[in-house]
Amino acid sequence: MKINGQSWRTIWLDDNGHSVSIIDQTLLPHVFRIVRLDSADDAARAIRSMQVRGAPLIGVTAAFGVALALRTDSSDAALEAVLALLHATRPTAVNLHWTLDRAAGVLRPLAASRRAEIALDLALRLAEEDVAINRAIGEHGADIIRAIATRHPGRTVNIATHCNAGWLGTVDYGTALAPIYRAHDEGIAVHVYVDETRPRLQGAALTAFELGQHGVPHTVIPDGASGHVIRTRGVDLAITGCDRVARNGDTANKIGTYMLALAAADNHVPFYVALPSRTVDLSLAAGHAIEIEERDEREVLSVSGRDGDGAITSLSIAAPGANAFNPAFDVTPARLVRAFITERGILAPADFGLLADDAA
Amino acid sequence: MKINGQSWRTIWLDDNGHSVSIIDQTLLPHVFRIVRLDSADDAARAIRSMQVRGAPLIGVTAAFGVALALRTDSSDAALEAVLALLHATRPTAVNLHWTLDRAAGVLRPLAASRRAEIALDLALRLAEEDVAINRAIGEHGADIIRAIATRHPGRTVNIATHCNAGWLGTVDYGTALAPIYRAHDEGIAVHVYVDETRPRLQGAALTAFELGQHGVPHTVIPDGASGHVIRTRGVDLAITGCDRVARNGDTANKIGTYMLALAAADNHVPFYVALPSRTVDLSLAAGHAIEIEERDEREVLSVSGRDGDGAITSLSIAAPGANAFNPAFDVTPARLVRAFITERGILAPADFGLLADDAA
Repeated sequence: MKINGQSWRTIWLDDNGHSVSIIDQTLLPHVFRIVRLDSADDAARAIRSMQVRGAPLIGVTAAFGVALALRTDSSDAALEAVLALLHATRPTAVNLHWTLDRAAGVLRPLAASRRAEIALDLALRLAEEDVAINRAIGEHGADIIRAIATRHPGRTVNIATHCNAGWLGTVDYGTALAPIYRAHDEGIAVHVYVDETRPRLQGAALTAFELGQHGVPHTVIPDGASGHVIRTRGVDLAITGCDRVARNGDTANKIGTYMLALAAADNHVPFYVALPSRTVDLSLAAGHAIEIEERDEREVLSVSGRDGDGAITSLSIAAPGANAFNPAFDVTPARLVRAFITERGILAPADFGLLADDAA
Repeated sequence: MKINGQSWRTIWLDDNGHSVSIIDQTLLPHVFRIVRLDSADDAARAIRSMQVRGAPLIGVTAAFGVALALRTDSSDAALEAVLALLHATRPTAVNLHWTLDRAAGVLRPLAASRRAEIALDLALRLAEEDVAINRAIGEHGADIIRAIATRHPGRTVNIATHCNAGWLGTVDYGTALAPIYRAHDEGIAVHVYVDETRPRLQGAALTAFELGQHGVPHTVIPDGASGHVIRTRGVDLAITGCDRVARNGDTANKIGTYMLALAAADNHVPFYVALPSRTVDLSLAAGHAIEIEERDEREVLSVSGRDGDGAITSLSIAAPGANAFNPAFDVTPARLVRAFITERGILAPADFGLLADDAA
């Protein structure tokens, strides 16, 4: 996708053939800075600090992290160390763990001398796969938007979303935003209500930035306003991404998603989750088994942004001495999800069993 | 209530017998500053800028504003002008309009020469009434908390709240927080989950400040986290204040309240609204008739707080060029409210008819 008219992905192999570059998403939309990753430690730090974020992008970054580690030491011990390092960065996003398990399965049987090359091939292949998957999610999801537009000719389709499940959260195109970009590019009139998504404000900062760069009309709202907006402003559907889906359809996504889904349900507005089908974790029967990452309370007690001089800084917003609780995700019960928009089409949890057969 | 061990109210008549002082709530908890109101314009500005906020306190401030105006000009024209000025400050809080209508009813028939004195008497009486009402709300609400504590001996009662309906939103004691203070003072173990309440962060700033000054254990959470917290952390009840309640029980309160009520309902946690009974607007059949104030989008696109040097400043948080929608209130349908905690006891909407008889 484009920034100031120039095409970018969120992660790429540098021309030197080994180091990897990312866009530092902790500074967007205020500053556009590219960060070079030269080691697995760099990759782990980028994931933990959320310089890269979004389940699909975290997975691909981890794959590159494995390749970076093996380039300097491809022994069994080094392989196990880098897998452990990267597994520990963030607990909730299933793509991270799926990717590392896939890398382990491929690399462990190999002679040490071949691992570095194969690990890099795998990372590059996963990046391309992500792009293809998201393009397909966009096509299937656009069918839903197009159907609404067809039922209401001449009227803009209003879509609510939460956090950032756009191209910045993937290698390209995005998950929840892919159908919106696709519909917009087809000429369907769409407008997006963007939850700001406290505490880290990925909606106000990243989703609004992406949509603005692509020319998609949008309005930022406080998270608490989405109920009122859905009730009073003619929202047609809600779409979010997700970090992990249990076999029954319970969905872990950015904190606040559950409340958006409740507001949609209370107003008979369909709530969709967009995801690569492998984000479904068939090993989990239901959402209560999903581990929820708890992050530093300082993310809640302070806010980062751009001061009058354009510098990025942060402010304390709470009463001095106050404590905060900062769960990064919540679980939306499957009963609140109308359907799952995947690269294989629009699925219900009853369809998830098929995914296991294909993976075998 | 106390700040650093010293007792304060939020508004008081100065020793000179005519000017009025308030605590500037736009600077709390970072700076404690007292502002003197010398005119109705000062009072209107304090209400509009939210130096005073909270439906009960807005009403009392308006009453003092009328008195300040009549002190310099008590003509019919001056009376009508100040009523119009103050009515226009904020549309949603019914106490404001109720207070001004009451003042109009008392003052219009009077000789101009008597108006200033009577207006001041009325303002002082309304302030005392507010304190008495809130004390009674605290007593009735504490019964609910005590009953939960009795059912679960040895366990802390967890209470969720939104925005600030504490003593800072009233003359003293608060509405939603009055039962919590009362229960805490009785020795019942309570803990409060405080929604930060974007965009103006009255929860993180004011409620956390109040509770901290009084020694009530509490934890600040992002607004989007209250669903997850209610689902997973053993919340026993939710209590909020309100700005206006329709005859059927539909409740206008700070944006985000509707979503908190949905989260409570989805988890079978009772959701209570605490209010002076006169906050019920019997002229409105249902919530859709309540006018919802829309405030400046800059409140959403930026955040105010305390920088590293202790200075109060604000940061831009959204993508440059983004627009925002900033409704100050939402309407919680009566079906989501377990009961209304008033100075006359715990009421259901079916009881509201009695209020009209009493007022007649």
